[in-house]
Amino acid sequence: MNQSSDYEACADQLIEAGRSLFERGMVPATSGNFSCRLHGGDMAITVSGRHKGRLTRADIMRASADGVSLDGNKPSAETRLHVQIYRRFPEARCVLHPHSVNATVLSRGRRGVLELQDYELLKAFPGIDTHEARLDVPIFANDQNIDRLAAEVDAWMDRHDTPVHGYLIAGHGFYTWGASVNDAMRHIEAFEFLFECELQQTRLGNS
Amino acid sequence: MNQSSDYEACADQLIEAGRSLFERGMVPATSGNFSCRLHGGDMAITVSGRHKGRLTRADIMRASADGVSLDGNKPSAETRLHVQIYRRFPEARCVLHPHSVNATVLSRGRRGVLELQDYELLKAFPGIDTHEARLDVPIFANDQNIDRLAAEVDAWMDRHDTPVHGYLIAGHGFYTWGASVNDAMRHIEAFEFLFECELQQTRLGNS
Amino acid sequence: MNQSSDYEACADQLIEAGRSLFERGMVPATSGNFSCRLHGGDMAITVSGRHKGRLTRADIMRASADGVSLDGNKPSAETRLHVQIYRRFPEARCVLHPHSVNATVLSRGRRGVLELQDYELLKAFPGIDTHEARLDVPIFANDQNIDRLAAEVDAWMDRHDTPVHGYLIAGHGFYTWGASVNDAMRHIEAFEFLFECELQQTRLGNS
Amino acid sequence: MNQSSDYEACADQLIEAGRSLFERGMVPATSGNFSCRLHGGDMAITVSGRHKGRLTRADIMRASADGVSLDGNKPSAETRLHVQIYRRFPEARCVLHPHSVNATVLSRGRRGVLELQDYELLKAFPGIDTHEARLDVPIFANDQNIDRLAAEVDAWMDRHDTPVHGYLIAGHGFYTWGASVNDAMRHIEAFEFLFECELQQTRLGNS
Repeated sequence: MNQSSDYEACADQLIEAGRSLFERGMVPATSGNFSCRLHGGDMAITVSGRHKGRLTRADIMRASADGVSLDGNKPSAETRLHVQIYRRFPEARCVLHPHSVNATVLSRGRRGVLELQDYELLKAFPGIDTHEARLDVPIFANDQNIDRLAAEVDAWMDRHDTPVHGYLIAGHGFYTWGASVNDAMRHIEAFEFLFECELQQTRLGNS
Repeated sequence: MNQSSDYEACADQLIEAGRSLFERGMVPATSGNFSCRLHGGDMAITVSGRHKGRLTRADIMRASADGVSLDGNKPSAETRLHVQIYRRFPEARCVLHPHSVNATVLSRGRRGVLELQDYELLKAFPGIDTHEARLDVPIFANDQNIDRLAAEVDAWMDRHDTPVHGYLIAGHGFYTWGASVNDAMRHIEAFEFLFECELQQTRLGNS
Repeated sequence: MNQSSDYEACADQLIEAGRSLFERGMVPATSGNFSCRLHGGDMAITVSGRHKGRLTRADIMRASADGVSLDGNKPSAETRLHVQIYRRFPEARCVLHPHSVNATVLSRGRRGVLELQDYELLKAFPGIDTHEARLDVPIFANDQNIDRLAAEVDAWMDRHDTPVHGYLIAGHGFYTWGASVNDAMRHIEAFEFLFECELQQTRLGNS
Repeated sequence: MNQSSDYEACADQLIEAGRSLFERGMVPATSGNFSCRLHGGDMAITVSGRHKGRLTRADIMRASADGVSLDGNKPSAETRLHVQIYRRFPEARCVLHPHSVNATVLSRGRRGVLELQDYELLKAFPGIDTHEARLDVPIFANDQNIDRLAAEVDAWMDRHDTPVHGYLIAGHGFYTWGASVNDAMRHIEAFEFLFECELQQTRLGNS
């Protein structure tokens, strides 16, 4: 695939991902941001402030591996979080950040690690082949200083050697990634399902 | 844009907004009402009693800046609330009043101010650039005397100099506005998300 | 309109109502039943046991005002409940019986009257022009003997002279009606919204 | 119908069932699996690891009555659970395994039998003609050893002579079946409705 068609194919997949996530209520208003790593190492990433449910090619832009705009557009304010993920996970080719009610409520006012265990759906993640596995989902405090937040995420990943497939930012949403847009979408579906289960069980446990 | 195409463009945007809000359960039965401020100062506003999910151009009418019918149709019973908003906010060109379960349950039997803080989604509103900002959403008692209700809303806004982007009427729904139909729709998406989060957290807090 | 086109127009409206209610989760499996009163006094009613989300004209049949099949098909087992409504309310031209989770949970194990008050949406019902009105929704015990259930509904209506626009059957669903299919659909939307609000508030009140 | 068109008709019905269940959130990520029993005794079954919301004919394969691949594809890891059902219920021609939040939360950390009673919707199942009937839904512990799980399901059915139309696997989802894809889909709709009711009532009972 040549560079230009790689970019265009990625853009079209991000457009479709946005439409689908919006229908499921996961990118309200102008929340969320998405990117793909291109074969040459650059990124296709959503332009800052666009509505993710109605993306067109004009809402996707090209940035360097360091997150610097290559076409004059302004990338998402959270581009550095995408950069951190691509640097750490060489196999990652897509990063998606949705913004669901479940993720927001589950993470708000909470820190530390959400431990997911005893769900068949954990097998949706690479390397997990039993519901008895435990998947840790770190929860970071929200921070408008994205460099500092990216450094905190990176430091957490340095300290932990268990697999990580996504993380929550308190009151904000979650980040996940995959080897393709389809893989990252599958991880969103799995996380969103598991977050809803956790939230419902917290409610049931209130008695 | 000439006057007639301005009116028609506004009408078509309100029709599409209604269809979209109905699909999300936010204008059941004949609830809700919508308007645009036209360039000449008049309003395009929904005719009283129409189903907002199936609007046609025949369900949109023209009223003066004071809310007086200019074409013989009867405007929404709550037209004076639209008038109040357009008078106070010169930049507002669209007012939308949806009627969601979340807004109804959250506001019913409640007065005062709903304080929204520590949500990334607050940044969907103009002038808010951090989750640490606090957005106050006043809750007014429901009242079939719309002139009196409009005066109460106006008096509240006189007394408060913090930014306000919408308000709740107890057991009734909410009002929000924006510089375009798209902006007002974005505010609906943000408020609805935040109201759902608040409601879920109230439930979790019940233990 | 001649008799045959009246029947066909009614059938098509019931088909569309079923499709729309199924999408909203209100007629799962083969639950629910719908009818129209035709101009000559007969009914168009759903054939027993059909899936209401995928109705075709072959799933609608003609019955007399007493609920007796006029075309060899077997009408819904609950046809007598439709007959009771048409007899009591001369203006009623459509009866719809959906089967929602909200109505089922709200009514199960409960008897007496659900009192709805202080909701703006009450104004969706004819004759109600303020949220301060009170709408009583009787809840009847479920009964497979439909003649006996119809008699119980009728006796309740004899004893109460407040307006009634629908009723619940415990663990079963609700009945509502209107002067047209559109009116009855509007009442479903209003009841479903109000039932969901009531249920959410019951949950909040659990603390 | 010849063998090839039987297979193709089944495959197309499973594709459509998957699309419909995905839209309702019941087969997130690559969860769930579906099969049909063909007239010759073989099965059409979903290939392991495919996304059930976007199935094509390439995602459906042929296996023997014992669950052995007949075309080189790898069948679902849970094929033996389908085999057990077809052996025990000669009238069953379709087995569907969705993976809903309601089923997961209701079953997680729970063993024994979920007793469903006093729901009109119970009549959606064959042989039940009153809400007063009781339908037992066994809940089995999740197990990655599918042969052992199939044997446990089979042993439970040996010990109980009340009708069974589906079962839950804790933290995993549910299995149901029917004389056709339509019948099995109707049972899914009924179970999902009943599970949601049960879960909501558990919440209400928390006070």
